[in-house]
Amino acid sequence: MNPSTENALPAAGTGFLGGEELRGSGAAFRAVDPATAAPVGPEFTSCGVDDVARAADLARTAYDANRSLPEGWQAVLLRGVAERLEAARDSIVEAAGAETGIGEGRLEGELARTRNQLNGFARVVEEGDYREALRVEAAPDANPPRPDLRRVLLPVGPVAVFGASNFPLAFSTAGGDTASALAAGCPVLVKAHPSHPATSEIVGRAVVDAVAAAGAHPGTFALLHGAGNETGAALVTAPEVRAVGFTGSFAGGRVLTDLAAARPRPIPVFAEMGSLNPVFVTEAAARERLGEIAEGFAASMTVGAGQMCTKPGLVFTTRGREFAERAAARLDGAEPGVLLNTATRDALADRLAASTGAAGVEVVTKRRDAFEGPGLRAAPVLLLAGLDDLAAAPELREEHFGPVAVVVDVGSEERFFEAVRLMPGSLTATIHAEPEDHAGLAPLAAELAELAGRVVHNGFPTGVAVNAAQTHGGPYPATSDSAHTSVGWTAVRRFQRPVTFQDAPEALLPGSLRGT
Amino acid sequence: MNPSTENALPAAGTGFLGGEELRGSGAAFRAVDPATAAPVGPEFTSCGVDDVARAADLARTAYDANRSLPEGWQAVLLRGVAERLEAARDSIVEAAGAETGIGEGRLEGELARTRNQLNGFARVVEEGDYREALRVEAAPDANPPRPDLRRVLLPVGPVAVFGASNFPLAFSTAGGDTASALAAGCPVLVKAHPSHPATSEIVGRAVVDAVAAAGAHPGTFALLHGAGNETGAALVTAPEVRAVGFTGSFAGGRVLTDLAAARPRPIPVFAEMGSLNPVFVTEAAARERLGEIAEGFAASMTVGAGQMCTKPGLVFTTRGREFAERAAARLDGAEPGVLLNTATRDALADRLAASTGAAGVEVVTKRRDAFEGPGLRAAPVLLLAGLDDLAAAPELREEHFGPVAVVVDVGSEERFFEAVRLMPGSLTATIHAEPEDHAGLAPLAAELAELAGRVVHNGFPTGVAVNAAQTHGGPYPATSDSAHTSVGWTAVRRFQRPVTFQDAPEALLPGSLRGT
Repeated sequence: MNPSTENALPAAGTGFLGGEELRGSGAAFRAVDPATAAPVGPEFTSCGVDDVARAADLARTAYDANRSLPEGWQAVLLRGVAERLEAARDSIVEAAGAETGIGEGRLEGELARTRNQLNGFARVVEEGDYREALRVEAAPDANPPRPDLRRVLLPVGPVAVFGASNFPLAFSTAGGDTASALAAGCPVLVKAHPSHPATSEIVGRAVVDAVAAAGAHPGTFALLHGAGNETGAALVTAPEVRAVGFTGSFAGGRVLTDLAAARPRPIPVFAEMGSLNPVFVTEAAARERLGEIAEGFAASMTVGAGQMCTKPGLVFTTRGREFAERAAARLDGAEPGVLLNTATRDALADRLAASTGAAGVEVVTKRRDAFEGPGLRAAPVLLLAGLDDLAAAPELREEHFGPVAVVVDVGSEERFFEAVRLMPGSLTATIHAEPEDHAGLAPLAAELAELAGRVVHNGFPTGVAVNAAQTHGGPYPATSDSAHTSVGWTAVRRFQRPVTFQDAPEALLPGSLRGT
Repeated sequence: MNPSTENALPAAGTGFLGGEELRGSGAAFRAVDPATAAPVGPEFTSCGVDDVARAADLARTAYDANRSLPEGWQAVLLRGVAERLEAARDSIVEAAGAETGIGEGRLEGELARTRNQLNGFARVVEEGDYREALRVEAAPDANPPRPDLRRVLLPVGPVAVFGASNFPLAFSTAGGDTASALAAGCPVLVKAHPSHPATSEIVGRAVVDAVAAAGAHPGTFALLHGAGNETGAALVTAPEVRAVGFTGSFAGGRVLTDLAAARPRPIPVFAEMGSLNPVFVTEAAARERLGEIAEGFAASMTVGAGQMCTKPGLVFTTRGREFAERAAARLDGAEPGVLLNTATRDALADRLAASTGAAGVEVVTKRRDAFEGPGLRAAPVLLLAGLDDLAAAPELREEHFGPVAVVVDVGSEERFFEAVRLMPGSLTATIHAEPEDHAGLAPLAAELAELAGRVVHNGFPTGVAVNAAQTHGGPYPATSDSAHTSVGWTAVRRFQRPVTFQDAPEALLPGSLRGT
């Protein structure tokens, strides 16, 4: 097969370093179209340790050089990326569709979201509050005398960003991690996800062009391909790298956090590692609108073929069978979804085999074979279990990354607390309740706020609004650092550090503090 | 010797757990008066793993129970501690003086600072901004529709705090870490520093009483003694503990960060691990006021017998010999200082032997024996070396915790950049310059902001003002997490995590978000 004519994509098979195309020195690989399971697009080559070392070194040079740019240069860059993504829209949607199996409508939405994120972070830069500049003036007559102190948040230095498989745009090359790190003023080294290298290349080219147009140093951005783990490990251990953004599996995230913690100079890894996103339905809510909730749940758990970090993976209700049957009726009518890649398919098959084999678990959906062809497809599967079964079977408390969820019959509402205690830290927790519940529900609501970074009332967790009030984070193992969010404007805080200037003359302050 | 009559201190030999006195199940130990090298005060016993487990469990219970307290309860508690410290002032100064060798005047100042910190964090709680409560209202007609989102910072849970040897009050039992963690709403488990157990007991009793008076759960505070490493290791690995505050040595800090990172559920350790605090003196500044700077430097490096994390440990100047001789003249006239304990004395002696043995190093101060008796005393020592000597001798770039510093002759101002590159991350960096320097000094100033958390102009780093603009932190290895400060009001941020409430009814919001 000749990739330039058959299964072609508008990409050249390249990464980027220092504003130039980069072909790595390591192993070659191609993407696979999960809708057909056939290779697609050009051949890419993995970056080795040497490529990463060059990129990290250049990023450090860029970091220093960019200090001489006018204040707010990051906004120019971010808006430039957004414009160029819009111009490359057709190529992006074509490549991402072929490489991920995500439909055109969702990709259009994801592209719009990605541009909104870039423009939103540009606005954050322009408004300037993200620097948290603050002055406490001198008080020479105080006891003890107080000097003039001016505090500001400065960028931490080069940041490594790992593209996510399930959001080829919004959490990948020019996604939220990249946009927030650039907004902070940090150069970004992107490790492209090997499932969508062509998409990464097209988006990466837009960033490279925007870097040049903004007058930033060409080392401000690099796109590094890698089929295995070597490229990423080299990035996380590169001495010049000061922080890492990651969205992916728990296993992958833990490897990176362990590598980063063991460095001679440890660095933070902001890893979002998946989540169970439990949903609690009170007796009163079930009585009022069980069907509506069950159908909403079925829709939410199958968004993106269930490959969302915010997929609701468990429902706790006192009416388990009824809920499960209502949801299953809808799921049985749904088309199988396309999975992102064979690793995802294989992992889901393993998890599902383990879960369905656990004592007391019943498969409520009707299809016999969840993994139907052509390509990498999975039909929705809904399981039903009792709370004691859940307590006895750790398999049921693992994320099923795909269109699989578990309805848990808790017997009585009092047992909601036992359910909460069984849950690992989560990105979200959802509660469906009626006004009559509220007086008695505060203790459960408080527990859910301990369990998750976002508590959703009478809704579903899969939509994640991008604004200043969002928290997309949560207690371990949902993320490696629950003090931060990877979505919304405060995500920039991950890539900043405070510095205080004591009695500094105006000329020797960073630009962001002059005139304060 | 009968400790109850001879070398007595106003302490009973106890820690605290659940509002009760606690005598640990482990090894017994006594403090040593460093001014005489004789044991002082009652016998204390180390807490074992079981004691720590009980304390951590009770702290978790307290954390949950304290949710039902009125908003702002932490301010009542913090002010209560400050009042009780003032009431116990004589006992505190007596015990701390005997256990640390710090003079009464400095202890009075440190106690005032400690109360100011407690009252300051109380004010932070009362003002409420530390919660960063923020609402973005629903926009049902937006594309995609946007739910109502309310974000707030909640406490992370129980926090372990390690008392520091060199600040028995301001960075120990009721010091900055404890005050900021309590302000966040976190229960605190203090590991008392074994050099000043009686001081810790007296202060701990004030906290215990204040907890009771504030109506907080008695598990909100515990004071755990421990002569060895077991108590601290148990604290950092206790499952209920969610964050750690530490001020101490690099070796100790690294052990704790490694332990915390290797937990099944890793937690952040905010470790302040010492610093070189380099000082740069421009040619022009030396010409204008070399004597004044040298004498100010000599005074700064001997504050607290040089046992300050902000002690200026290195000076870079083009007039090394002249600077060193001016400083040495003042140092030679100074009294030897009392060191905190034998470990500090032995470590300083080792470091000094290594440094004075390095090629090209000259001892400029005149005393032959730095470690004069009685007790644990050290006379100031000033070393002189060239920049190339510094580059060749890593010993010279290690902190000398005590009244020892190094003057480095850089030959020419251009070599300041080489000097910066030799420096590990630091809490502070200082520059003495004249207005005529400013035009050319921006690149060096920018480098210093990369090196340190605070950049001091024409002053000395040893004073650390406590306010909203302070940063007492810095790049690794000065601290384990340069994104935070351990001094000043933003220190509370270390012990908080954001949570977003989506479409939440008023009744199910945390108190801090109601009515927003």
